[in-house]
Amino acid sequence: MPLDQATLDKITRRAVAEIVPEGEFIQRLQEGRPLRLKMGFDPSRPDLTLGHVVGLRKLRQLQELGHKVILIVGDWTAQIGDPSGRSTQRTMLSADEVKQNAQTYMRQFFRFVDREKTEVVWQSEWFGKFTLEDVIRLTAKFTVGQFLQREDFRKRFDAGNPIAITELLYPLLQAYDSVAIKSDVEFGGTDQKFNLLVGRDLQEKMGQRPQQCFMVPILVGTDGVTKMSKSMGNFIAVEEPPETQYGKVMSLPDTAILNYYELVTDVPEAELVEMQRAIAYGEVNPMTVKKRLAFEVVKLLNGSEHTARQAADTFERVVQRKEAPEEIPTYKLPSGPAPRLSKLLVDTGLAPSVSEARRLINQKAVEVAGAIATADEPPAGLKDGDVIRVGKRRWVRVER
Amino acid sequence: MPLDQATLDKITRRAVAEIVPEGEFIQRLQEGRPLRLKMGFDPSRPDLTLGHVVGLRKLRQLQELGHKVILIVGDWTAQIGDPSGRSTQRTMLSADEVKQNAQTYMRQFFRFVDREKTEVVWQSEWFGKFTLEDVIRLTAKFTVGQFLQREDFRKRFDAGNPIAITELLYPLLQAYDSVAIKSDVEFGGTDQKFNLLVGRDLQEKMGQRPQQCFMVPILVGTDGVTKMSKSMGNFIAVEEPPETQYGKVMSLPDTAILNYYELVTDVPEAELVEMQRAIAYGEVNPMTVKKRLAFEVVKLLNGSEHTARQAADTFERVVQRKEAPEEIPTYKLPSGPAPRLSKLLVDTGLAPSVSEARRLINQKAVEVAGAIATADEPPAGLKDGDVIRVGKRRWVRVER
Repeated sequence: MPLDQATLDKITRRAVAEIVPEGEFIQRLQEGRPLRLKMGFDPSRPDLTLGHVVGLRKLRQLQELGHKVILIVGDWTAQIGDPSGRSTQRTMLSADEVKQNAQTYMRQFFRFVDREKTEVVWQSEWFGKFTLEDVIRLTAKFTVGQFLQREDFRKRFDAGNPIAITELLYPLLQAYDSVAIKSDVEFGGTDQKFNLLVGRDLQEKMGQRPQQCFMVPILVGTDGVTKMSKSMGNFIAVEEPPETQYGKVMSLPDTAILNYYELVTDVPEAELVEMQRAIAYGEVNPMTVKKRLAFEVVKLLNGSEHTARQAADTFERVVQRKEAPEEIPTYKLPSGPAPRLSKLLVDTGLAPSVSEARRLINQKAVEVAGAIATADEPPAGLKDGDVIRVGKRRWVRVER
Repeated sequence: MPLDQATLDKITRRAVAEIVPEGEFIQRLQEGRPLRLKMGFDPSRPDLTLGHVVGLRKLRQLQELGHKVILIVGDWTAQIGDPSGRSTQRTMLSADEVKQNAQTYMRQFFRFVDREKTEVVWQSEWFGKFTLEDVIRLTAKFTVGQFLQREDFRKRFDAGNPIAITELLYPLLQAYDSVAIKSDVEFGGTDQKFNLLVGRDLQEKMGQRPQQCFMVPILVGTDGVTKMSKSMGNFIAVEEPPETQYGKVMSLPDTAILNYYELVTDVPEAELVEMQRAIAYGEVNPMTVKKRLAFEVVKLLNGSEHTARQAADTFERVVQRKEAPEEIPTYKLPSGPAPRLSKLLVDTGLAPSVSEARRLINQKAVEVAGAIATADEPPAGLKDGDVIRVGKRRWVRVER
């Protein structure tokens, strides 16, 4: 039975950057036969952010239509490190690190993707027994010139920056994954386009029906400017506390709000259009729109409306009304004379280092028992129950 | 005991293009410890020409000083095909072809190199069990940019001609051979310089004492212009008839004579200087000098002074005095009407094809029973014992 237009639009229009070739993909969807949806992951980067969830929601939608996700643990490609969008090479991981990272990844992955309709495979199943002859056959199918067309390779090559020969193997191995699992559709961000197309090409060269390449948009980070990523520090992580997630959405620049609604919520298009209009005409406070978004995001990331409600409550109480949160972590002050404030901030976990603690003190960002600290000295007369606060959202209650 | 200067000069000055680094090589020679002399060969090109013999004579000289040749059968690199000095890729060989070609090669190789002081190894000893991990480690040590510096790669790359990624593996595998056999010195033509240096570099990167690279000059072909090679048709093959070898040397342009003396004979330098002077002042007929060279070459290639003497005699009788050679192959004419002359030339092996036969007839290059043939018709009145001749050196005696 062919899909109705609304479903088709949901799959192929919302939160989609490009499908190559789109007509072929729609045709295969309409055929109704379960498709093998290839999703690879790099165990050198095990932590998921909201940016990754854009693609995972797409996988989930397709699972609900009866298709199957093939999750590939890139334990071999992780040994090389894909330089896509990066200017230097990564370091190699040990087998143990890979194993542990894979567990971390999957714990997060299956918050969004249906485990029952997923097959997990490791690259080592095929690359573990790959011979030099296999490598020769594979590398004979593509040219150096073709690969140096990839944007990041070309930039580095033109700038005279080194590209290890190994790095040319990366797209080839990723492509061979498609052959090994007989992929029907491969998913990735738009920055993966080259690699996905090499997979399609290789399947065709090796006599398989070539996969379609399904690219989801890159989610902008909380700075509203660059791609969300761990290394840029502009991320909302799947596994950070719901209050933090909520607060980070609230810190988004207004310009990013509608894009987030589009990519990570199911709020209908019609409502989004109305929302955009209302913001533009000043008929609605962007804060209100952002709170709804923050609620949706926390609900999505934690799979719980209750958690989202709590995070919203905390935000309103702590940040908006500047009260102390209900649950404040406590710190048992050791006996003896109190240490300098900077050391105390490090000991309580309120600052990552003494130098950072001093910076916070100088910036008047530290409050001890209700008074702004003005110098890095041992706080005088700290009593049991006193609160030390850093910035707007970090607190510790002292016990002695 | 250190080597005397004459021996050192013979090794490092005569028939040497470049030794990198030369001082290091001389030092190791003087140490007296037996060196491992690496010589690889490509079983896709099993036939040796006089051009290859230049390097083999060098190996022999070093064997006589107590050093050991390690002959590497490039059964793996042959699968790739080195594009050095070529603009297109070669086709891959089957395992059987490789084996047969290796036998052919060694039969010729050991005419010049001492079998007792040679170890023959096959690349499959190490590449047969090479894993993807080994490939990754190896390819991580060099960059695409470094390899595209190799002259032929750069030319093809700049011209937009395809370079298969596999081809970048070729120098890497050849380099790894040096590591596998712990090579002390690698031998090759000057067109191998890049590959030899990658071997030296890789050994150093993998903690081995790096090899020296010993490059012998490229011998010019019988046209006196381009490198001697099978594909250019300007070669003197190790396994062709001595008379042919002799004749080919005699066909050399005068400008090439001294270079041949220098590279493939032991005629002392002092004599060569005098020879050059005598030719320049017209005090000697170049033909005389060439005959001596032809004699030396045939003696070298066949290891027999007697064979060389016979070839010289044949040349003088057949070519110079235009007599028929003593031994003329015979051809038994089938009964029935005689065929057209062109077909007869093909049947007797005097022409490779009917069209070539017609060309020869038109050029008046065919003689039947002492008379130049003027048309491609059945020769009238052929008697038993009549001779058919094509050009100066091909004959058949008819039997009927």
